[in-house]
Amino acid sequence: MNDYPSVLLEAAVQQMSSLPGVGKRTALRHVLHLLRQKPETVEAFASAMTRLRNEVTYCRVCHNISDTELCPICSSRSRDKHLVCVVENVQDVMQVENTGQYNGLYHVLGGIISPMDGVGPKDIEIDSLVERVKNDGVTEVILALPTTMEGDTTNFYIFRRLQDTGVKVSQIARGVAVGGEIEYTDEITLGRSIVNRIEFKA
Amino acid sequence: MNDYPSVLLEAAVQQMSSLPGVGKRTALRHVLHLLRQKPETVEAFASAMTRLRNEVTYCRVCHNISDTELCPICSSRSRDKHLVCVVENVQDVMQVENTGQYNGLYHVLGGIISPMDGVGPKDIEIDSLVERVKNDGVTEVILALPTTMEGDTTNFYIFRRLQDTGVKVSQIARGVAVGGEIEYTDEITLGRSIVNRIEFKA
Repeated sequence: MNDYPSVLLEAAVQQMSSLPGVGKRTALRHVLHLLRQKPETVEAFASAMTRLRNEVTYCRVCHNISDTELCPICSSRSRDKHLVCVVENVQDVMQVENTGQYNGLYHVLGGIISPMDGVGPKDIEIDSLVERVKNDGVTEVILALPTTMEGDTTNFYIFRRLQDTGVKVSQIARGVAVGGEIEYTDEITLGRSIVNRIEFKA
Repeated sequence: MNDYPSVLLEAAVQQMSSLPGVGKRTALRHVLHLLRQKPETVEAFASAMTRLRNEVTYCRVCHNISDTELCPICSSRSRDKHLVCVVENVQDVMQVENTGQYNGLYHVLGGIISPMDGVGPKDIEIDSLVERVKNDGVTEVILALPTTMEGDTTNFYIFRRLQDTGVKVSQIARGVAVGGEIEYTDEITLGRSIVNRIEFKA
């Protein structure tokens, strides 16, 4: 799939294949799908992307994507404002919300510390988190970052930065997935789940 | 993943997930990828799609996507103009071109006959194929359509339409794929490859 019969087609495929995980062949399929739609449908597709990019705003408190200055979660009266769950990105907020197990607020870092990718503590929303903890009556910060080296680094950095504020800092439990077989759990996860075992309480 | 924090985000995800095989989760990942790009990058992405849709033109002879009235293949002096390979769509032209085994022209139907999807002979470029065969000195029509029920129906319909023109009509060979194990070849394909066996010639 190298020679495109049209430069317009090639340009569209090129753009489409810039999306993560989309190769040239899938991109061509997507583009030819759009080509079969009405012009106004393609217009709507294109303008949804540019409108989002040009008009997107972020909540000034938690930095989640929001249509309002203060997002619905931060402005909700029924949420526990003493709890802040720190996540990497927007998807993670939606994922935690879907559990139905959390009723506090969020703080979206917009990334995690990754020296390999040139992302340092100043590139993500850590200073604003420290400010929130100092000024907004937060009693516990729950770190829900990826269980990777970068996630651990970020967890530790945030813990150090928050140490002298007196706030309680916790991180989400790591262990065998619910429904997971012991046999197929990787050794590191299984090892940690043994070290961090939880006592039955009557 | 149901509650989007922003209507702009939701609209973009909605549009992105209209692409074939793209679910809500992948669409969200794509959209948030675009959101991390510069506004002009997203602008370029969007305009490549709308430009293609609004400015696309098709070769007046073979109906392939083309930037010119006559596509480079149809206007090439080195291609054999007596041979016409009939394919379903643009991808198939690219795929046959990639084999490097074909030096004739193409005819892009833009679909195949599929009563289930409401696609009849008049909805695809069959009349124009018959006209080409009658007027353009074509000596052989090679049918390279999908080996499905719809493909077979279309093959047979085209064969019938061309019967009284005296043109030779062939279809691409069906059989065990090159590199394929006999053990794992489905029975119908294997059966046909036995019926249509090819004699060794010294």
